[in-house]
Amino acid sequence: MADTITLAHGSGGKAYKELIESVFIPAFSNECLSRLTDSAVCSGADKLAFTTDSYCVSPLFFPGGDIGRLSVCGTVNDLSASGAVPKYISVGMIIEAGFPIDSLKRICASMAQAAKEANVIIVTGDTKVVEKGNADGIYINTAGIGLFECEPVPQQVMAGDMIIASGQIGNHGIAIMSARENIEFTPPFESDAAPLNRLAQAAMRICPEVHAMRDPTRGGLAQSLCEWSCSDIDIAVYDSKIPQKVSVSSACELLGLDIMQIANEGVMLFAVPRDYAEAVVQALRKERYGEHACIIGEAIKGTGNVYAVSELGTKRIIRMPVGELLPRIC
Amino acid sequence: MADTITLAHGSGGKAYKELIESVFIPAFSNECLSRLTDSAVCSGADKLAFTTDSYCVSPLFFPGGDIGRLSVCGTVNDLSASGAVPKYISVGMIIEAGFPIDSLKRICASMAQAAKEANVIIVTGDTKVVEKGNADGIYINTAGIGLFECEPVPQQVMAGDMIIASGQIGNHGIAIMSARENIEFTPPFESDAAPLNRLAQAAMRICPEVHAMRDPTRGGLAQSLCEWSCSDIDIAVYDSKIPQKVSVSSACELLGLDIMQIANEGVMLFAVPRDYAEAVVQALRKERYGEHACIIGEAIKGTGNVYAVSELGTKRIIRMPVGELLPRIC
Repeated sequence: MADTITLAHGSGGKAYKELIESVFIPAFSNECLSRLTDSAVCSGADKLAFTTDSYCVSPLFFPGGDIGRLSVCGTVNDLSASGAVPKYISVGMIIEAGFPIDSLKRICASMAQAAKEANVIIVTGDTKVVEKGNADGIYINTAGIGLFECEPVPQQVMAGDMIIASGQIGNHGIAIMSARENIEFTPPFESDAAPLNRLAQAAMRICPEVHAMRDPTRGGLAQSLCEWSCSDIDIAVYDSKIPQKVSVSSACELLGLDIMQIANEGVMLFAVPRDYAEAVVQALRKERYGEHACIIGEAIKGTGNVYAVSELGTKRIIRMPVGELLPRIC
Repeated sequence: MADTITLAHGSGGKAYKELIESVFIPAFSNECLSRLTDSAVCSGADKLAFTTDSYCVSPLFFPGGDIGRLSVCGTVNDLSASGAVPKYISVGMIIEAGFPIDSLKRICASMAQAAKEANVIIVTGDTKVVEKGNADGIYINTAGIGLFECEPVPQQVMAGDMIIASGQIGNHGIAIMSARENIEFTPPFESDAAPLNRLAQAAMRICPEVHAMRDPTRGGLAQSLCEWSCSDIDIAVYDSKIPQKVSVSSACELLGLDIMQIANEGVMLFAVPRDYAEAVVQALRKERYGEHACIIGEAIKGTGNVYAVSELGTKRIIRMPVGELLPRIC
């Protein structure tokens, strides 16, 4: 087989089949996918979660991950946030002619590894090849199906809820930014992109009333919390409680960035009733990727504001990010 | 709102929200989507069909359709071919900065129209914006979920099966090709891209043993029939029986193209036992998009060959297309 992707690989013909058989099937091997039909047949449930995300991250490979890991984790996390158990993933690749087959294999291996970790299977896929210069290497879309074993999370924060973050804020965004801009730090920042379904399940097991769950990706904490606040709910977050690497906060200061707006790919946010909050934190800390879990804020009766409270007790309003802090972050 | 897409529209922030609220929600309005959560919650079934396809067609608008219509119909048809009833569609858009909002609205209107026609709902979506020059306008991924009301189609052609085409071959491929190459014909060729779920359902209602169903897109009839033949099954197609517009066959001759390899987006192929074939054809002809349905060939005991039989009785072997006949056809 050729070393790079050619337009023929996107033809649906012989070269396409060769690509599927030599790259995708070995990487993702499972019974559903191996049938090579246009639609996978999967077992279902009464209620489904369905989500999609396209990944156009630049660079494709970065410390702590790559576009492959990101594309599986992001979709797993969106399903998990709904309260569903992620089960099936579809993969749609748009690849530029000239893209190295070796890079494609690395990306597939990384997707397979993330899928295994998340206990999901890649059941169906599609590949299109476009002319060089028309896709910046590779874009990956993943859609996902999750099955509900209990009721969907209502995504409605209530006054009295505590806001919990499952891990350190900002690691993914700062890693991408420094990789892209060639800003060197020692040691380099690493993305924490990870499948968080076990964290979501752990919280739901210990707390029958998870009011909202969300992975704060594009737009960061600011975006998620602003979407959670509503006409009669304020959300207060405590600056000193936000788990973060010292190096990440220093980088934010250095670059003039607000950590509240940095994208995350390895963090889940929860809103749970006060009485359950400590138990949820303890349950999260026992899970992989949950060791830094802590309460970062609370929801109170108010008028729809989100604000950060400094150690001195001063408050500053957190607004929905307006523009693009960093394009192509995921 | 701006007239063209900007990087801010891909930020996940305020501009992104504005785009969703002013373009997507009005076009696709339904209860699932309006919740604007990352995952849609849908009702399910014991068995599901799941498929994905990315659409990178060029040009984006062509006689008879556009990338929007194509992206819904293609996924509806893949689900239909499995024997499932298509229900839910996800939409992942990758849009280039500078893309006109008006074009995006036209595309969305076209998707909404196709979805309505196919009785599917667009329940979840995602939009990424990349720098100008990185996506040739817009790429659309759709994934789809179908629910099985009866058993999945086995996709196993048997000796004695008749091969039925639901409509005229080549219309989509020739329309795209002439639009792209500015080859002018009077009247212009029109793509027949259409949702074919009602045809699939009609065939399954009349025939309890549809052995295989397939929409012959990339690679055309040649690809689908070669995949259907197997070690002990030959497939014979009769040149004179293939439904086709005279203008399309003339264009093929003129351009030196084999109609067997031209992509279709408005045609479904069926393999059904001989005794049901005529009834299936009659049932298809009663449905919209099925008026040209006819038997085009048959499966016989053999050694895995596909061949076309001319009116004089001579045979020529049909092979799996090797390379790319026409990139970016869907």
